[in-house]
Amino acid sequence: MNTLDCLVIGGGFAGLQCANRLQAAGLAVHLLEARDRLGGRTRVAPLAGRTVDIGGQWIGADHAELTALAQAAGANIVPQYAQGARLLHLASGGRDRLKRYRGLIPNANPLALLELDRAIRRINRASQTLNLETPWESAKARDWDHETLATWKQRHLRTRTGREIFDIAVRSVMTAEPGMLSLLGFLFYCASNKGFEALTSVDGGAQAATVDGGMVQLAEHLAAPLRADDRVTLQADVSRVTLTEQGWRVEDREQRSWHARRLVCALPPALQDRIAFEPALPANRAQLANRMPMGSVIKVVVAYPTPFWRQAGLSGEAVSHSLPFNTVFDASPQDGSSGALVGFIDGGPARIWSAHTPDERRRAVLDSLVRYFGPDAADPLDYVEHDWISDPWSRGCYVGLMTPGLLTELGPALRTPWSGIHWAGTETATEFCGYIEGAIRSGQRAADEVRIALADRRR
Amino acid sequence: MNTLDCLVIGGGFAGLQCANRLQAAGLAVHLLEARDRLGGRTRVAPLAGRTVDIGGQWIGADHAELTALAQAAGANIVPQYAQGARLLHLASGGRDRLKRYRGLIPNANPLALLELDRAIRRINRASQTLNLETPWESAKARDWDHETLATWKQRHLRTRTGREIFDIAVRSVMTAEPGMLSLLGFLFYCASNKGFEALTSVDGGAQAATVDGGMVQLAEHLAAPLRADDRVTLQADVSRVTLTEQGWRVEDREQRSWHARRLVCALPPALQDRIAFEPALPANRAQLANRMPMGSVIKVVVAYPTPFWRQAGLSGEAVSHSLPFNTVFDASPQDGSSGALVGFIDGGPARIWSAHTPDERRRAVLDSLVRYFGPDAADPLDYVEHDWISDPWSRGCYVGLMTPGLLTELGPALRTPWSGIHWAGTETATEFCGYIEGAIRSGQRAADEVRIALADRRR
Repeated sequence: MNTLDCLVIGGGFAGLQCANRLQAAGLAVHLLEARDRLGGRTRVAPLAGRTVDIGGQWIGADHAELTALAQAAGANIVPQYAQGARLLHLASGGRDRLKRYRGLIPNANPLALLELDRAIRRINRASQTLNLETPWESAKARDWDHETLATWKQRHLRTRTGREIFDIAVRSVMTAEPGMLSLLGFLFYCASNKGFEALTSVDGGAQAATVDGGMVQLAEHLAAPLRADDRVTLQADVSRVTLTEQGWRVEDREQRSWHARRLVCALPPALQDRIAFEPALPANRAQLANRMPMGSVIKVVVAYPTPFWRQAGLSGEAVSHSLPFNTVFDASPQDGSSGALVGFIDGGPARIWSAHTPDERRRAVLDSLVRYFGPDAADPLDYVEHDWISDPWSRGCYVGLMTPGLLTELGPALRTPWSGIHWAGTETATEFCGYIEGAIRSGQRAADEVRIALADRRR
Repeated sequence: MNTLDCLVIGGGFAGLQCANRLQAAGLAVHLLEARDRLGGRTRVAPLAGRTVDIGGQWIGADHAELTALAQAAGANIVPQYAQGARLLHLASGGRDRLKRYRGLIPNANPLALLELDRAIRRINRASQTLNLETPWESAKARDWDHETLATWKQRHLRTRTGREIFDIAVRSVMTAEPGMLSLLGFLFYCASNKGFEALTSVDGGAQAATVDGGMVQLAEHLAAPLRADDRVTLQADVSRVTLTEQGWRVEDREQRSWHARRLVCALPPALQDRIAFEPALPANRAQLANRMPMGSVIKVVVAYPTPFWRQAGLSGEAVSHSLPFNTVFDASPQDGSSGALVGFIDGGPARIWSAHTPDERRRAVLDSLVRYFGPDAADPLDYVEHDWISDPWSRGCYVGLMTPGLLTELGPALRTPWSGIHWAGTETATEFCGYIEGAIRSGQRAADEVRIALADRRR
């Protein structure tokens, strides 16, 4: 029996970064991944002869670690195309309206814009009072955590248009409806990601750039030294973790087993229950599995012969409150030699469309695109989608959601190690929670915890 | 390979009732239970020479199936002792007050009582508009589901005392704080259980009677014919369920396997993820596992030489907003030959006290009892507790909780069968959801579904 220093469970960016860092520190580490691929909630797919991201895709303006990783991997970082007008599709009051706008603020009715502006400033002000390490200790934490974002919206936004635009923003950022989200959780998410506007923005925001050829290159760059030393096992679906006198015994569903002094669980809490822990996890950590559901999203990329919307003065960005394909961006190759649009069915609509056939979904997506961009959108060259809700190794995307009461009741359990088990994953991040950047930082933090703990033991 | 008609996973009252009924119908059924005992969230323990319930305990006045089962089992049904005054401990505004009262309504300040009365009537009126089969289809379902019970309380109760008493009631009924509960979910729970008052009442309510010697007799009565035919396997911790051409293959963590045409999952959604389903469950059903956490409760029974509180004119019932042992009832033997008090640390305090040592918890419980009943409570004959939160086979009690958005987004997934898998458990009950009565009825419903499905196939 060969006892490792550390086993990392989960081969997304958090697990990869953690294992990579532990290996670099000279520790005997091994990474277990249930899927037949690395990258977790990032994933690429072929589309009209290109490789496109069908999972996590964007590098935010402030995503320093991810930017450094992309540079180290020699990847080509491409600014997100955002020239021209954006589209906002509203249907409040039964009127189906498509509005063009530039900048952040659409040209909706002035009263709606005024109260939206106030609401956003109110959210940013409140979020800035939070300590990212301990948002649950804020003086107002309890009140904020016991309210949903929906009742907050009802109180602070009176116009139908204001409420619709707010819903669109929340749905596209959280892939969930405001009615299941904790106000405190949302404030934390804003604080963690530099404010409400950054979350919804391209220039200077969370959708600033992408990587030519897909995020998978960056995952593989982190994995390369691990693979070279045979420190990665794919299709290792960990089913049981048992504390023994030598440390932790980890077993997968094929009855293979590994032993290690320390474990890093780099899975979202919603996937934690695939593993039986013996002894059982402390109650607070165990409860996270049933209190932090994943968001709901289906991602689609559609290829066209040309980026025809650009000729019409459109950026390719479009959002809607009622069309199924409710958030869209330009995903054409950088030289514009062909066209592509990438977008999401997210929140409530994602759950509904997840139950439809692929053909019905494709029809709904193309109908939405025709509504945004005209009849040219009806005949794509190619089409690819991934339903992240139905993916059993993710259970949804982008991120585990903070339901009412979660942060104040279980917040400390997110990161507190227990009996040699450490927790990573973007859900555990203080900065850039929900993003690849947060995943990377959480992996670094967990690696540092493990290194310190092992060093303490040896002394 | 012997293919059964039906495998039932989970040996609580839902699974037992279901398997019992299928066996009685002449079907080849087998029941798998992960624990080394039957009864699920009911459980007995020895206390001062008696056998007491340390899990589900009460037979409600309207619990017809449970009453019939108790009679069939020849159990001695004992009315819950409720003579004398009740105690209400309040600490709002820093004033620590212990109030005696009779009837349902404490003698608190008249304004608080008035608004409480109005709030309860408002809740009952709203709950009566719900269809128990499809509460998510109510005209107001979305608004009600996107609000927590905490913000509802803030709107409808203005006095501190009113809010405290409301919190006490919600906590003792739901074992959770109002801030994590959906208003719609709570309205459904009230409707399912004959209204707000019935949930909190002894006479004519959900705590009307108990069974001498414990609920386990009733579970064993249901199990007896199954055991006689060797149709029960304990310590079968099901880890994988795979669809094959012959039906479902069920495997436990010890690699034992069974095959059946139909499955009944008689587990709360929060435990569903211990099982890997292949193919994966439909997205909506899979999401229930992460959207319906169990309540938080530690149950304690304390034995005394005499029921000394009775001499002081007290019923033994006591509730508090701030004392850890926040809900108490008399649990003395029927003849009053000795004394016992049974109660709960529930909601937020349960999570806090779950992390303490048993000694610290015992001290907190006895201190609470001294505050309620005086110094005689300080020296018990015997003491027994069960922390249901830390029980890995339950994850909490009494019941899976309806978080905001759950019912409107995932309600139909609670009971809809999928590919030959049927769902039972008190969480799936329409009537008496959360109670043993609901579990029994859900087991009957699932058994009927299976019988009809198998009969259809044979025709």
